[in-house]
Amino acid sequence: MSKIRSIVSAIALASSVSVASAWDALPTKAPAPANNPTTAAKVELGRILYHDPRLSSTGTVSCASCHNTMLGGEDNRPNSMGVNGQTGGRSAPTVWNSAFNEVQFWDGRAASLEDQAAGPVTNPIEMGMKSWDDVVARLQSIDGYDAYFVKAFGANSISKDNATKAIAAYERTLITPNSPYDKFAKGDKKALTAQQVRGLNKAVELGCVGCHSGPAFNGPGTFQKFPLIDNAYLEKQYKLSADKGLYEVTGKSGDENMFKVPTLRNIALTAPYFHNGSVKTLDKAVKIMANVQLGQKLTDAEVNDIVAFLNALTGQFPKQEMPVLPGTPGTTFN
Amino acid sequence: MSKIRSIVSAIALASSVSVASAWDALPTKAPAPANNPTTAAKVELGRILYHDPRLSSTGTVSCASCHNTMLGGEDNRPNSMGVNGQTGGRSAPTVWNSAFNEVQFWDGRAASLEDQAAGPVTNPIEMGMKSWDDVVARLQSIDGYDAYFVKAFGANSISKDNATKAIAAYERTLITPNSPYDKFAKGDKKALTAQQVRGLNKAVELGCVGCHSGPAFNGPGTFQKFPLIDNAYLEKQYKLSADKGLYEVTGKSGDENMFKVPTLRNIALTAPYFHNGSVKTLDKAVKIMANVQLGQKLTDAEVNDIVAFLNALTGQFPKQEMPVLPGTPGTTFN
Repeated sequence: MSKIRSIVSAIALASSVSVASAWDALPTKAPAPANNPTTAAKVELGRILYHDPRLSSTGTVSCASCHNTMLGGEDNRPNSMGVNGQTGGRSAPTVWNSAFNEVQFWDGRAASLEDQAAGPVTNPIEMGMKSWDDVVARLQSIDGYDAYFVKAFGANSISKDNATKAIAAYERTLITPNSPYDKFAKGDKKALTAQQVRGLNKAVELGCVGCHSGPAFNGPGTFQKFPLIDNAYLEKQYKLSADKGLYEVTGKSGDENMFKVPTLRNIALTAPYFHNGSVKTLDKAVKIMANVQLGQKLTDAEVNDIVAFLNALTGQFPKQEMPVLPGTPGTTFN
Repeated sequence: MSKIRSIVSAIALASSVSVASAWDALPTKAPAPANNPTTAAKVELGRILYHDPRLSSTGTVSCASCHNTMLGGEDNRPNSMGVNGQTGGRSAPTVWNSAFNEVQFWDGRAASLEDQAAGPVTNPIEMGMKSWDDVVARLQSIDGYDAYFVKAFGANSISKDNATKAIAAYERTLITPNSPYDKFAKGDKKALTAQQVRGLNKAVELGCVGCHSGPAFNGPGTFQKFPLIDNAYLEKQYKLSADKGLYEVTGKSGDENMFKVPTLRNIALTAPYFHNGSVKTLDKAVKIMANVQLGQKLTDAEVNDIVAFLNALTGQFPKQEMPVLPGTPGTTFN
């Protein structure tokens, strides 16, 4: 642990010299994998699929139900509500800027947006479809979908692989640039208030940047243990270590409580906080992070400054056209 | 009953002389009540409120969840799914062109869109809010809402009355013009296929127009008994008379099984059919309507013709910008 702490401190010191190089402005385009270059046709299809509740067993839950593109990209709930009112143990991460995550899901078990998109659809407490074969059959039963798939992928192309590719391509367009911080990073020194600058400097000084740097404030490094420092008092209140994170997927002891480092972009809009959504407000989240990750006890003034800075990470949400989903003339979908 | 039948027949005969006067093209603007003239600011606020799941107790159900503006204005389910996976006994009516209904809800218990909008929000199995006071308090807690209310209604104007007025103003813009039928009614005789014209003539000849005429195919007259003619065989299958309609609100014996006459616009997209959503396909719905409302037994060819005509009532869905809902920086909404 002391080794990790000293790395964090070293990065913190380096970063205080050159903040902008650690925390760059957000790119306006996301990189796409070689096997799924972003095209307008894929994005169009992906936007439709992403918002279609017929991808769930009940016809009531779409990707957007828990990762709301009209809000901060999630649902402001401790845990999401899937089909038939079911809830799980984790809080929905934001879809905004998820293209800049190295891995997806809180436990990082998906290596790409494509892999991630396949998961919730057949999760029994999320979208509840029995199998992707059923999803494909349903998409095939909705006449209008074929034309969109043809345009994006060619003839007879309705498949799990292409549906998840289209959703991922759409998600790569969900980028929120031009936050006050981005303007600041590009040289507009008036874009942040004095308090926000104090908060920024404090965050660097504390070592937050050890995990939360780069344009999406989620690197370098992909995973981090959370909580890192035991705190019985906080544990009793928030049960932060109950969920074993990556370990629950791999079973490897080194993976215990390892989680994907989440982006800080738009964090002011994504309460409640942490993987289990146990903390309702950003000021408490900041205090707890300082405590269990960095062993620091912050004053209220320091917390307020950092929260002010984090509010400067709320970007501009791009205007989107509401998709018109292909209907199923004359019959129900199920 | 024989009196009602003869009125229906008389209208049917009159209408077969002049179809276009009975079934006009859909207006592109909806009339607004004197106490709620439509303004751009109200429509903007209404679009946001309509899509905001935070108007429900769980934060998961918005107006759009059951009356989907990306689809046929409802949810393609026999009955809708409200908070915590609860379901009721009726099928969600479409929001598209609801501005042209004389009354709202299947049982017509709301006299206006404003009245209607107030209902589901505090219905325990729909959006589940305890009271409109709680809704108003929540809207007040979301900073961004105030500016929209000020723009639409003036200072300090967040209230049930204004929220429902804004939602109604938005709903009055949800009109789907330029269906093949509308083009036909305006003089483009090639807008309908030969089969669709046969279906149209058959619908007039049968007397469907007795209840389903006017630009939204839902008048003259506001209510109709359904089913009108007893049919034990169909009743056993579809239980159409179990729900007493308006009687369940008024308790008056004359109101038994009286329902609002629903629009036929976009009916091809709004399966399953009838107040209880018991009939999955449009062809079956047409057959049953002929049977229990008009005492007619149709051939499959006649049914197919009428279904073809009903498909000509699918209009053009206006392009809409996806609203960006005001966030709640730093804290959860509940």
